[in-house]
Amino acid sequence: MEGLDHAGVFFLRWMDDSFAVERFMDRESPRQAAIVGGGYIGLEMADALIRRGMAVTLLESAPEVLTTLDPELGAPIRAELQSKGVRVIAGQAIRRISRSENGLSVHTAAGDTLMADMVLVAAGARPSTELARTAGIGLGAGNAIRVDRNMATEVADIWAAGDCAQTWHRILRRHVYMPLGTTAHKQGRVAGENMLGGSREFRGTLGTQVVKVFDRVAARTGLRDKEAIEAGLDPLTVSLTAWDHKVYYPGAKELRIRLTGDRSTGRLLGAQLVGHRKSEVSKRVDIVATALYHGMDVKEICDLDLSYTPPLSSPWDPVQMAAMEWSSKR
Amino acid sequence: MEGLDHAGVFFLRWMDDSFAVERFMDRESPRQAAIVGGGYIGLEMADALIRRGMAVTLLESAPEVLTTLDPELGAPIRAELQSKGVRVIAGQAIRRISRSENGLSVHTAAGDTLMADMVLVAAGARPSTELARTAGIGLGAGNAIRVDRNMATEVADIWAAGDCAQTWHRILRRHVYMPLGTTAHKQGRVAGENMLGGSREFRGTLGTQVVKVFDRVAARTGLRDKEAIEAGLDPLTVSLTAWDHKVYYPGAKELRIRLTGDRSTGRLLGAQLVGHRKSEVSKRVDIVATALYHGMDVKEICDLDLSYTPPLSSPWDPVQMAAMEWSSKR
Repeated sequence: MEGLDHAGVFFLRWMDDSFAVERFMDRESPRQAAIVGGGYIGLEMADALIRRGMAVTLLESAPEVLTTLDPELGAPIRAELQSKGVRVIAGQAIRRISRSENGLSVHTAAGDTLMADMVLVAAGARPSTELARTAGIGLGAGNAIRVDRNMATEVADIWAAGDCAQTWHRILRRHVYMPLGTTAHKQGRVAGENMLGGSREFRGTLGTQVVKVFDRVAARTGLRDKEAIEAGLDPLTVSLTAWDHKVYYPGAKELRIRLTGDRSTGRLLGAQLVGHRKSEVSKRVDIVATALYHGMDVKEICDLDLSYTPPLSSPWDPVQMAAMEWSSKR
Repeated sequence: MEGLDHAGVFFLRWMDDSFAVERFMDRESPRQAAIVGGGYIGLEMADALIRRGMAVTLLESAPEVLTTLDPELGAPIRAELQSKGVRVIAGQAIRRISRSENGLSVHTAAGDTLMADMVLVAAGARPSTELARTAGIGLGAGNAIRVDRNMATEVADIWAAGDCAQTWHRILRRHVYMPLGTTAHKQGRVAGENMLGGSREFRGTLGTQVVKVFDRVAARTGLRDKEAIEAGLDPLTVSLTAWDHKVYYPGAKELRIRLTGDRSTGRLLGAQLVGHRKSEVSKRVDIVATALYHGMDVKEICDLDLSYTPPLSSPWDPVQMAAMEWSSKR
């Protein structure tokens, strides 16, 4: 992508980037923002800038926003963005950003042009490995710093943790590059303990993630169909729409779930949920994450003694309903 | 308790009971209600009747409401009731209900008298076992129908499930009497499958429960200190107050947690949570329930890959913060 160095074009990577955006907004009072990237950061920025009264266009090169979820669950997030006034342009790659006296122009590969006073680039993440490389430390998955499960690098007495380092995946049983705050915290503690003579092992990521976009929450844990196939598994994914609580109790809202399990072994592989911000989406995906940690079978999820009261759930939680649906389809 | 047969005195056990209460309210327009019992049903009725504009007094014989939680967590529920206009009288047993031309009078053991137009008795639960006894089926824990883990009674071809039957407790490894809707559903499926020739085993209750009281939610799973001691375990319980999400993001609310583990083995035994209805209390207790199902150590809870985004949690979920607190106190 060309033209990233124009005034008014910002990355969102470090704390300083957000301060720079804030100063620019205070000084220039931009009215139109273009956000490049429909992932977590891009969606959160769309939410924040609409609240500030700006006109926001979100550009995503993939056919649907939030590519960390299946498109069926990206679609309701796109609908939420649009209902809150965000213009969404998906399926168009950005080639170039130019600047004229009228402001910034974002040029798509298809030849369209979008005007903006400010462009936020929130696409992709690359590990910061300069320091490690100068120390002679090797790189691994995703060109992140190669570490073992004790977070030790290949060089004695040097540990690495967080977004610069590769991450052990508990289901895939191999290292991946997956920079997430939760993982960074856990790896940091493991590295810290081991630096002081401990022998602690990082238990691995499940790729659990969540984002709030206006009044919707989207969360996932484990593997999706596509990822499971790439890992040589035999996945089956079912979709379910269920009420977040008993519909006779006021305020029930629909929750959309996609549950993935391995057809041959019956083992749980992952789940994706989208629902209202009041529907406990985030901690519902955590039930699945806790089940995944233990390598549960999909069927056994129905045996979990989960909490129920009519204003908050059903005697079978939606997660268990999805497990039943999966078992009936296998 | 005497005087339970007066007009205007109701039990809350069957569907018909609630219809009778509704008819009475339509016909008599009672203004003052006394609720005997500060458990789930009593608290839910207080919530419902205040919404209907009635003056409500809740009477609980124990020193604190919601005796299924430790008194430290019953106290904020009492405060919630009082802040919403419910008069709470705790620590006084009820001896008698009488009726005069002025209405009903509830007489406490201490000699106090409370006037009411309607009295709801929501105290205790007893299994309905008449049919089973006439069939020669033996009773077990809590005088409920004795069943094995396949939900079979002692008499061939007769199964039992739900509030009439005893329940296998997954941590205590014995049968208890614990009538809950979630358990009834699970037992019913097990019994149904086995009636049709299956061989399914009920995996056991953890005693997971939740109740919404106005804007608060109280939930628990597993064993409390007291229950663990009775079971011959060596429990340690820690208390923690944490924000439900990052405090820099608007709307953060305090969550109170009590986490119990076995001091000698390090094994997780249970948790109790009280917080705002928006704080995902119910599904947070379900994370603990899922961990308990698998017999996790308290310390290992910190290794769970739970979801995080600033509007919904912290990089260490409050449940994990409580686990850290526990580990540091052990």
